[in-house]
Amino acid sequence: MFSQTVEYGLRAAVALARGKGSALTGKEIAELTQVPSRYLTKVLSYLIRAKLVHGSRGVGGGYTLAIPSEKISLLDVVNAVEPIRRITTCPLQLSPHSGQLCALHHQLDEAIAQTQGVLARSTLADLADNLEGCRTMVEVNIK
Amino acid sequence: MFSQTVEYGLRAAVALARGKGSALTGKEIAELTQVPSRYLTKVLSYLIRAKLVHGSRGVGGGYTLAIPSEKISLLDVVNAVEPIRRITTCPLQLSPHSGQLCALHHQLDEAIAQTQGVLARSTLADLADNLEGCRTMVEVNIK
Repeated sequence: MFSQTVEYGLRAAVALARGKGSALTGKEIAELTQVPSRYLTKVLSYLIRAKLVHGSRGVGGGYTLAIPSEKISLLDVVNAVEPIRRITTCPLQLSPHSGQLCALHHQLDEAIAQTQGVLARSTLADLADNLEGCRTMVEVNIK
Repeated sequence: MFSQTVEYGLRAAVALARGKGSALTGKEIAELTQVPSRYLTKVLSYLIRAKLVHGSRGVGGGYTLAIPSEKISLLDVVNAVEPIRRITTCPLQLSPHSGQLCALHHQLDEAIAQTQGVLARSTLADLADNLEGCRTMVEVNIK
């Protein structure tokens, strides 16, 4: 249900959250998250565009979260990569539906709302502190 | 969050549910659901493969639901078109995760489970009887 790009964006964001403010290079993030480097660069560009991640070049440069991890939800990350769109108008473009959705699209929108709700309730901080057993992602703390 | 193919599959299934057992031709379903004919044929083939829809050729032929509409959930239709996969193993293929998911993938799986739950609770019969205002989809009852 979640695309590979969303999966990679979430891994990168969690890896940065575990960095606790230390800048990580693209190579480090790629190793931690097992995301191919070129794909990772693209995904990080989405997070930078959404102002969730800050990137700096040069010696000592790298990527950090642009805002505290406890203020970034999984939904923020997903929406930065591939926005989840609610169904607000009739996809069949039927004029009688301009004011309300039919039962089918109401149910689909409810499913989307439930997904948004779960993702909105978890922050990167919640996850970064709770990755026991995640060998690769945990190594960022061992450096 | 739901692909165009899933959307079309659901429209076709609801149109057939409203047919109350009357066979509808591909052309009729295409008009009712506003799905391009060739795309519709592909989507209907998924529903036939999943044994949700029965198709017959010749005079008086067409498409009908293969089982009663009250026994087909939206989830059945979605899974026939593009199965929703739960996350049961670590996408990073980390051996420490063989027994459990990390917090990130646990949350993503929870979001998927919520979506499945909403879709599983509605049947085609529920929706077919509750499409007031849906001019196009309602016309199947007017024929």
